[in-house]
Amino acid sequence: MANLPVNKSAHPFDKARFETVLNRRFFYAPAFEIYGGVAGLYDYGPPGSSLQANIIAEWRKHFIVEEHMLEIDSTIMTPAPVFETSGHVARFADWMVKDAQTGDVLRADHLVKNVLEARLQGDKEARGQAAQPPPSEDDKKKKKKKEVKAAAVQLADEKVTEYETILAQLDNYSGPELGKLCRTHDIRNPDTGNEVTEPQQFNLMFTSSIGPTGQHPGYLRPETAQGHFLNFSRLLDFNNGRLPFASAQIGRSFRNEISPRAGLLRVREFTMAEIEHYVDPGDKSHARFGEVKEYELDLLDRHTQEAGSTQATRTTVGDAVARGVIANETLGYFLVRIAQFLLKIGVDPKRLRFRQHMQNEMAHYAADCWDADIHNSYGWTECVGCADRAAYDLTVHSNKTGHPLVVREALKESIVTERTVAEPNKKVMGKTFGKDFAAIAKVLEDLDEPSLEKLKADLEQGTGTVVGPDGRNFALTPEMLTIGRKTFKQSVREYTPNVIEPSFGLGRILYVLLEHNFWAREQDIERGVLSLPPVVAPTKVLIVPLSAKEDFQPLVREVSSKLRRAGVFSSVDDSNASIGRRYARNDELGTPFGVTIDFASIQKRTMTLRERDTTGQLIGDIDAVIALLVELVNGTASWAEACRRLPAYDGVQDVD
Amino acid sequence: MANLPVNKSAHPFDKARFETVLNRRFFYAPAFEIYGGVAGLYDYGPPGSSLQANIIAEWRKHFIVEEHMLEIDSTIMTPAPVFETSGHVARFADWMVKDAQTGDVLRADHLVKNVLEARLQGDKEARGQAAQPPPSEDDKKKKKKKEVKAAAVQLADEKVTEYETILAQLDNYSGPELGKLCRTHDIRNPDTGNEVTEPQQFNLMFTSSIGPTGQHPGYLRPETAQGHFLNFSRLLDFNNGRLPFASAQIGRSFRNEISPRAGLLRVREFTMAEIEHYVDPGDKSHARFGEVKEYELDLLDRHTQEAGSTQATRTTVGDAVARGVIANETLGYFLVRIAQFLLKIGVDPKRLRFRQHMQNEMAHYAADCWDADIHNSYGWTECVGCADRAAYDLTVHSNKTGHPLVVREALKESIVTERTVAEPNKKVMGKTFGKDFAAIAKVLEDLDEPSLEKLKADLEQGTGTVVGPDGRNFALTPEMLTIGRKTFKQSVREYTPNVIEPSFGLGRILYVLLEHNFWAREQDIERGVLSLPPVVAPTKVLIVPLSAKEDFQPLVREVSSKLRRAGVFSSVDDSNASIGRRYARNDELGTPFGVTIDFASIQKRTMTLRERDTTGQLIGDIDAVIALLVELVNGTASWAEACRRLPAYDGVQDVD
Repeated sequence: MANLPVNKSAHPFDKARFETVLNRRFFYAPAFEIYGGVAGLYDYGPPGSSLQANIIAEWRKHFIVEEHMLEIDSTIMTPAPVFETSGHVARFADWMVKDAQTGDVLRADHLVKNVLEARLQGDKEARGQAAQPPPSEDDKKKKKKKEVKAAAVQLADEKVTEYETILAQLDNYSGPELGKLCRTHDIRNPDTGNEVTEPQQFNLMFTSSIGPTGQHPGYLRPETAQGHFLNFSRLLDFNNGRLPFASAQIGRSFRNEISPRAGLLRVREFTMAEIEHYVDPGDKSHARFGEVKEYELDLLDRHTQEAGSTQATRTTVGDAVARGVIANETLGYFLVRIAQFLLKIGVDPKRLRFRQHMQNEMAHYAADCWDADIHNSYGWTECVGCADRAAYDLTVHSNKTGHPLVVREALKESIVTERTVAEPNKKVMGKTFGKDFAAIAKVLEDLDEPSLEKLKADLEQGTGTVVGPDGRNFALTPEMLTIGRKTFKQSVREYTPNVIEPSFGLGRILYVLLEHNFWAREQDIERGVLSLPPVVAPTKVLIVPLSAKEDFQPLVREVSSKLRRAGVFSSVDDSNASIGRRYARNDELGTPFGVTIDFASIQKRTMTLRERDTTGQLIGDIDAVIALLVELVNGTASWAEACRRLPAYDGVQDVD
Repeated sequence: MANLPVNKSAHPFDKARFETVLNRRFFYAPAFEIYGGVAGLYDYGPPGSSLQANIIAEWRKHFIVEEHMLEIDSTIMTPAPVFETSGHVARFADWMVKDAQTGDVLRADHLVKNVLEARLQGDKEARGQAAQPPPSEDDKKKKKKKEVKAAAVQLADEKVTEYETILAQLDNYSGPELGKLCRTHDIRNPDTGNEVTEPQQFNLMFTSSIGPTGQHPGYLRPETAQGHFLNFSRLLDFNNGRLPFASAQIGRSFRNEISPRAGLLRVREFTMAEIEHYVDPGDKSHARFGEVKEYELDLLDRHTQEAGSTQATRTTVGDAVARGVIANETLGYFLVRIAQFLLKIGVDPKRLRFRQHMQNEMAHYAADCWDADIHNSYGWTECVGCADRAAYDLTVHSNKTGHPLVVREALKESIVTERTVAEPNKKVMGKTFGKDFAAIAKVLEDLDEPSLEKLKADLEQGTGTVVGPDGRNFALTPEMLTIGRKTFKQSVREYTPNVIEPSFGLGRILYVLLEHNFWAREQDIERGVLSLPPVVAPTKVLIVPLSAKEDFQPLVREVSSKLRRAGVFSSVDDSNASIGRRYARNDELGTPFGVTIDFASIQKRTMTLRERDTTGQLIGDIDAVIALLVELVNGTASWAEACRRLPAYDGVQDVD
């Protein structure tokens, strides 16, 4: 009875109900709501903050602790020269268009997407195909205004194919190409029917100014990565000069989105968790690749998309790396680690894919990039990026500042090379050539071996000639220089490492997690449940005393403090509501377990234990229930196991 | 032998060595160092990040979990209207002066402080009193340039008293008063000898702009508090409408300091932890005050400072509240909780005091404020503020937005009142007075009881008179109104709560913690030790295999994974350095315990256990040592207890 199967899909996902629960229980809410709000800014309330803190704690364990990464915490405010060097000032931009009449601002790619999807939808309707409304990037609240209305107009078959192909590779278009699409396909601002202007770049960084003089422009970082790179030398030192290693950082970043409208999925301020893993560019193997190579992922590679398809293929990572679909072991290793993390915290494995960026889509610093896309009511959303930034960032900062951001590796065996070199007799040549000497010496230094051998032979014949940088000939005689073989020994190798960067958008992950775990009881659609895994659930155990009466207080305190000492976070609901009502309220908050303290608890020290998804209840001695709870929360026991250990509670017990 | 007393004060605190260690081991470093750095911005490296994360984790336990606070996470970017309402746009400013010739910017109060302190110092030297250099707000690195040189000039006795009095109440001066001090005492820019301009206000908020149009100014929050207040209604709801409760938030804030020069103590971007505790303004008692009332604090109240003294008085909190030195129980309760937290993480109790703000010093929103000041090499530094913000913020936001930020409390017993009221006969009076009726009705409503009784008596005599708002008399007759007793029943009380706000600057706390816990071994001043308590130490246990040889790997993995499963964070040092050298390196990082894995470990499964401060070593079975370590780290066993449980290790053991 306590362990019945649960039908979580009795009712289809109901976004309106879902959003009502999140809002009512204050998982998150528009920031500055009482001031009318600001698009793209959200505050997390108590359950949202706890969920986020638990996701972060698990991320720290899964990545930083498990992989011995070096955690850092760098500043958000950044002086302009850093982002000038990194290329963000010139290129970290989206394309925007303006309504030619009203001046309203729209993001160009979103405009094309919304209009073409609406036309395809209208076509389906006209053809009489029953169709779900297409996934939309629009915020529910603004739906009425912003969703592009689909008019039931049938399109020519080749138009349908053309639109579908455009949509499959939408992220691959440049700004001018998007402008051309708007003209070719008569794409207008759907709110007004007006034409739009040519796409212009809009830089996504928030600007500010540092210090009282107003003379030092600064930006709010749009990613935490530069803070890692600028500290590379110190981090390498901390790691005793050894590679590979990774730095990790969890913190806020800011992007001044053009017109954010997808709830937590597109925001202007967000918490990221970023890893920068530094590797030898000549060796991107990974010591632990063997542990993951049989792991299967749904991969959607670049070529598939460029061919107009969005069909992912299930492949083992070992196979994908062997076939060159994934470029190297380190990238493959991290894709698996990312997948493992996402599934551990409760993402639906059937709604996870890894999509490779197309050539034009990649950020300016990336050599290759795979996104962990997670499916949700808005469509597929990039939640984690995993880019190979190659040596781009370290190289540009090093060139700009003159501070070497390199690894110096003592070679196990020195490399000994022998080559022919010319050694000028400074005195004789200086006397002969005066101020031309330096130029001639440089020419001699740059000569290749065959030329040197020829010159040597010429000199043995009496005289030789070199050509100066300005084209003049200079005659050389044997007393001016010696040419011979010399050996060189190199004992240190110096190189700029490559960087593999897994980068997590925690707000997006939090949102899809909530969607994937929300459902309603089969017998009552009003009773929403959030089946968050215990590891991330905001509260692990709800303690429910029969009433707020003094009688129950000592036991409530005892259970609560025993759980706290075991590291299990509980909360108490001693409100007037019925026990059932209190449990239902906590089902919405994702609290996986509940215990009831009643008169039998006082008389016999028993306590009932309830599981959220099945609503099954067990009964046992208070300390036995606490011990079991600790195991359930830590994942060392399952509910099925719990049902074997304790008797089911039938709702009736003797009280003397 | 393993438990010898340790002399941590054999060498005086050496700031240069201290800073060298922090820098070399990358606790923190100037941000953008390879770009020349930016004053007031710092990055935390691995040990600094871990220390910060551990301080935050302990803060969460000590406050949020222990006191059932509601955690939130609100945005940093804030639209301008919010800070216009809160008063920050007009008043969140410091006074700055400019060098009249060079235009260099200086903070006015710091200028006065530095110059007067230097003169007092010069006076002491002239009087031949051996004197330590006074604590300075300057950064070590810039000391040469920036520290005001003390010229050995003797001052008149009354000048000395005058300067000391000014310094004791420096925080109490307004901008114009600071300007007057500069003129009266000929205070000039010490770098140039030039006069300075009149103090001007400089707003400390960083500005930005939200969205692509540039039409929505925003600020980076200078405190997290407004994010709590704007969500007050949602939080109250979440707490089932009950007061008192507290919200808590840990996050970044930004202040564009005029000329930051004191390392981590004065920065432009910092992590705060803030609590907003909402109370009934009519009842600021605290349910747990009884638990803390015997706790003693060093208090420096407003009156003492205004009298020119900086002498704190040790007082029990119960006594201080009873005598009105601390305004109420809730404020007193939090001062104790703050002190308990600071001591738990390792602040020196002898260097902690609570100082009350003087009247002019208080932030514009505060009704009362106590700072937890911690003494360090820069002098006394405010690390935690504990302000009574009264109903200021909730009131201004509510007035501005029209959204009520109030508590509605069902009264246990309705309050029944009876009073005399006038009820106009609308029809008759309207006909008689026309458009004046509303004004007359309002006058009748506002009349006090005696006036109503008099009017009633007059009417009983035939006619009465009321005076309109414009001074005109209106004659009333009995048919126009009835005057009589009525009963009123009030069942809900509505009020704006007051807010008590403990606000922690985590970077400042982290810095003073490092200073308080740094010392050098008596026998070797070069061997710096950071005696961080295990609860905040970045790494709890160092695992030291005799060498990096394969032989030791299985045991290293076993010990490391057993510790991890018990929740104890360890790290491995398998470098080539000697064991002693490896331990010494980790003494600098504050790692409290170390275990050595050697040939005896392989043969006999024994392991030595070393304590950082005493350098004492014990030896025992591997699992016994692990069990003991878990207790030592969790604080359930002391080192003295450990020495009773396991035999001391004398450095010699039989290996077959």
